[in-house]
Amino acid sequence: VSGRVVIIAADRAGRPNDFPVPGALTGGRPAECPFCPGNEAATPPEILRVGDGARWRVRVVPNRYPALAPDGGRPVSDPAAVTTRPAAVGVHEVTIEGPDHQGHPAAWPPEVLGEVLGVYRLRLRALAADPRLAYAIVFKNHGAGSGATLAHPHAQLMGLTFVPELPAREIEGARRHTAATGRCLWCDAIRDERAAGERLVAEAGGLVALVPLAARFPFETWVLPARHQERFEDSSPDDLVAVAAMLGDVLRRLGAVASDPPFSWVLHTAPLGPGAAVGFHWHFEIWPVVTRVAGFEWGTGVFVNPMRPEDAARRLRTAAPTRRR
Amino acid sequence: VSGRVVIIAADRAGRPNDFPVPGALTGGRPAECPFCPGNEAATPPEILRVGDGARWRVRVVPNRYPALAPDGGRPVSDPAAVTTRPAAVGVHEVTIEGPDHQGHPAAWPPEVLGEVLGVYRLRLRALAADPRLAYAIVFKNHGAGSGATLAHPHAQLMGLTFVPELPAREIEGARRHTAATGRCLWCDAIRDERAAGERLVAEAGGLVALVPLAARFPFETWVLPARHQERFEDSSPDDLVAVAAMLGDVLRRLGAVASDPPFSWVLHTAPLGPGAAVGFHWHFEIWPVVTRVAGFEWGTGVFVNPMRPEDAARRLRTAAPTRRR
Repeated sequence: VSGRVVIIAADRAGRPNDFPVPGALTGGRPAECPFCPGNEAATPPEILRVGDGARWRVRVVPNRYPALAPDGGRPVSDPAAVTTRPAAVGVHEVTIEGPDHQGHPAAWPPEVLGEVLGVYRLRLRALAADPRLAYAIVFKNHGAGSGATLAHPHAQLMGLTFVPELPAREIEGARRHTAATGRCLWCDAIRDERAAGERLVAEAGGLVALVPLAARFPFETWVLPARHQERFEDSSPDDLVAVAAMLGDVLRRLGAVASDPPFSWVLHTAPLGPGAAVGFHWHFEIWPVVTRVAGFEWGTGVFVNPMRPEDAARRLRTAAPTRRR
Repeated sequence: VSGRVVIIAADRAGRPNDFPVPGALTGGRPAECPFCPGNEAATPPEILRVGDGARWRVRVVPNRYPALAPDGGRPVSDPAAVTTRPAAVGVHEVTIEGPDHQGHPAAWPPEVLGEVLGVYRLRLRALAADPRLAYAIVFKNHGAGSGATLAHPHAQLMGLTFVPELPAREIEGARRHTAATGRCLWCDAIRDERAAGERLVAEAGGLVALVPLAARFPFETWVLPARHQERFEDSSPDDLVAVAAMLGDVLRRLGAVASDPPFSWVLHTAPLGPGAAVGFHWHFEIWPVVTRVAGFEWGTGVFVNPMRPEDAARRLRTAAPTRRR
């Protein structure tokens, strides 16, 4: 009816009443946490390890309950002949972002978070070599209420055989702008936002943090490179330290204005494959979980944001981000 | 960038740190509840009352914290010259669905819920007379975790100056099908689903309940009239009792399979205005809140449903819905 794409990942929920309380975190104590040092055997076999042996700093493992799998399970031919549901082929990995169970990226030095971002970059590049994949997305849910099910800091990477709706709409919007003007939509928007200033949050190290014009959530903030750069994966190690410094700064500002909230971030980079990047401009989208989306949003696709983006930006801009301990 | 529509409703959040804990319900005790009998003065002046004086059965009042207002506030000309943000003109009402603070629609006799649905219909018809409005949507969040902020049973009605994205996509999908086949997409789907049976939940009183092919949430269920009917508002009083019986049946089944979960429902009916209904087929979408949507969904627009629609339908079909007390 609507062209909606849903990944049916039935292996994630086998038994009746196996839904955890939404928002509850499991693996609360390090001894029970599959991501803590000493419990490495609790994860599927490792894809990548940064650091020496038991003293690792970052690990990448397959998601134990993948929404997508390399073999994709079986395609489902629909008895109602409405459609055939293709196999859910793809990649679903977890990046364990450090050994510290209680760690918080707002507290990490830029070099530490920069090393984590380097692992994002490494895995994105690895997925680019898989000809079946069209897009890869990195996202992170942190804290009870964010959608995370484990407390230990981690991000997820999904490699998809299609470009999903929201990046595809961004790409199409940018393509139209470039066709009309010959310029990058994002570069133009950054220029205008810097000139106006009222939705700017911070600028440093070649990066801009701003509240987008049509923010869905209070304090939603985007971090973009000020100069045109299509793929996050093209960032240099120095670039990544600057990105990490800006992400940490934004997280500390969010912590100051919204009482250390749960948060999510998502990285939008250009689609995989040669030629697919034209006109894109990578960015992180970050938001604290301070409101709840419900019937209206699910029924209309329209969001209600109870905070003017200009007010959110002013509060974030003037916040005194204190160093998290 | 993406064509996303966001309603900026800044009057809903004035002060810093005024965000309630997501999912917490206020007005927990009847004495503090603005929707309880005796507290009628706590709501804005009433639009509609069913029943006599203090012994009312249903009330409709303006939302005290409207996301949209008849005068819409002021349009915002963007200093960055990116765009001008139009005024958020519209209607935002609350239907108080009964005097009982602890009431649950799963427990209401069809005549009681049918009377509530009759109020939905009445207000939808009233909004159709406002030439500024293009669409009206009724939605309901029930229970802590559903997005409801008040415990007392209520629904919301929003009248919009535009057809929002999700109904618009349904209308466009149906239009394409009708252009290709001359038939209603929904009627064809209902015929196919009845023939196949595996996503059917229940059939009664001229209504069909089924789990949609691309369900976003576990146990998401749609209730549609089996015969072609474009507008919910065209339902007769007898029709409404049958719809109420089916909604109650679905809610009791959800209660049986998912331990009396918080839930939402949304009514999709045809757009307002003569001629706008062609090809539409009204339906309720109902889902229990048993999973949490997070970074992946907000970053991609793609949903991960951990339950096959066929499994959800089988469990709902074979559930023994017990009468709620």
